[in-house]
Amino acid sequence: MIDELAELPLRLDADRARVNAELEELFLHREAGAVRLEEAMRYGVLGNGKRLRPVLVYFAGRALGACDEDLDPAAVAVELIHAYSLIHDDLPAMDDDDLRRGRPTVHRAFDEATAILAGDALQTLAFEYLADAGHARLGAMVRTLAQAAGRDGMAAGQALDLASVGNALDVDSLARVHSYKTGALIRAAVRLGALTAVPETDPRVIALDEYGAAVGLAFQIQDDILDVTGDPATLGKASGADAARDKPTYPSLLGLEGAQAKARALLDDAINVLAPLGDAGAPLAALAKHMIERDY
Amino acid sequence: MIDELAELPLRLDADRARVNAELEELFLHREAGAVRLEEAMRYGVLGNGKRLRPVLVYFAGRALGACDEDLDPAAVAVELIHAYSLIHDDLPAMDDDDLRRGRPTVHRAFDEATAILAGDALQTLAFEYLADAGHARLGAMVRTLAQAAGRDGMAAGQALDLASVGNALDVDSLARVHSYKTGALIRAAVRLGALTAVPETDPRVIALDEYGAAVGLAFQIQDDILDVTGDPATLGKASGADAARDKPTYPSLLGLEGAQAKARALLDDAINVLAPLGDAGAPLAALAKHMIERDY
Repeated sequence: MIDELAELPLRLDADRARVNAELEELFLHREAGAVRLEEAMRYGVLGNGKRLRPVLVYFAGRALGACDEDLDPAAVAVELIHAYSLIHDDLPAMDDDDLRRGRPTVHRAFDEATAILAGDALQTLAFEYLADAGHARLGAMVRTLAQAAGRDGMAAGQALDLASVGNALDVDSLARVHSYKTGALIRAAVRLGALTAVPETDPRVIALDEYGAAVGLAFQIQDDILDVTGDPATLGKASGADAARDKPTYPSLLGLEGAQAKARALLDDAINVLAPLGDAGAPLAALAKHMIERDY
Repeated sequence: MIDELAELPLRLDADRARVNAELEELFLHREAGAVRLEEAMRYGVLGNGKRLRPVLVYFAGRALGACDEDLDPAAVAVELIHAYSLIHDDLPAMDDDDLRRGRPTVHRAFDEATAILAGDALQTLAFEYLADAGHARLGAMVRTLAQAAGRDGMAAGQALDLASVGNALDVDSLARVHSYKTGALIRAAVRLGALTAVPETDPRVIALDEYGAAVGLAFQIQDDILDVTGDPATLGKASGADAARDKPTYPSLLGLEGAQAKARALLDDAINVLAPLGDAGAPLAALAKHMIERDY
């Protein structure tokens, strides 16, 4: 575990560079299409994203024996879905954000119509890219990604989140919103990595599903904590935004220490469920620890 | 051909009823998710749509020997993509329409954020539904649908269309915008029907591709013509909307008679390319004639 943690930053950098190169590739040698739309898509995808979801694809897939090349399609597809969701979440009719990752949001840098279309086309591209890879388990992979992104996942989470502003939610309701809004796609990233390596029926896929659920929720709690404690320069966005919007968060419901304790308990869960993977699970354990202790 | 034309209205009604029942089914027994989002998705999909794209799936697939049950997934998926695109096109930042098919648009009946999310989730559902069917040629089908919907198709067309308002386009540029904006998905519908029946390499798929391209453009020209000549009560929307927005159209570029002649020439093309299908192509020929002669 100590070695894994020491090596982790290098691995994260390598995986980020890998998926960034794949994402850049999507916008090279393009002739068809609409120039401004392509620019907005590219702007929304590239930049200094954490690339957490692709990293989870690579880590989960490698733990079950997949090679990096085979994992690229799922890594790219899940990041395209994430990027589309950020563009739409930032729109004036939604969260109305001007800044994202320290830069103007897509509708500020371009215009609202172009931002809507860029998000739409990035979602489409995710499924197209996955289909192009022609994986033997394509059906299960498309289903995994779609269920996480759509009305049983991220889109439902965003709808519930918008409806929750100014409302008193209890911790269970908040966990439900989060499990849809951010948890589902994080869990899908882990599952897509696993499915690249082994069939759905492999028992290690179930272990990794539980890992994905735990780190997904812990990640969101840490996000809520950073909104209270974080440094805007490190975060690339204003802190205190949730409180200003009167959004229910883990710190507002459990207190800061209660939220931190909850995140640590989920980290323990995430590490414990990796037992069936043996030593191959060590990088995933280190990654979970890193995700919960991050300050960005 | 005469018999085919006489039978056509009954066939169209049967196919519409079939796909409507399948679409209704998508919203039954739903427990997860967000209630208002589901309502908006349902509202956007159901109603008195022409269901032209599903009809093309059924007609193309049957012409190559597929049975109706096998064609349902593609018929549903392509209509979900179409419904999502209408919801987003109608948004205030896009075409800013209050009425669609004689009813308030989704953002008017619900709200803007819900309309954006409903469109997003309908797109996702299209790919999920296609994947669920587990067709042997799923990869080619996802690729066909995605290429038609995304930055090489419909999304690019909408971006180019928005950029064209108030600009002087020539007929070739207008044809390019239309081939992206509406042509691509109509062509994809025909191709998805064909792929349900036979592999991509079957020469009849190429013939049907040409058929799809011709009827796709002819359909749009007829839409432009109806915007000038149509009865708002039959159309379910105001006529004259294109002229009011200073949008270039076929009648504005070619004159009304020129546009009608162009549509008739494309109809001839569409019927001629069906020759390799023999008698099996007759329903498709009748459908093309109907599409170009419609008044709604």
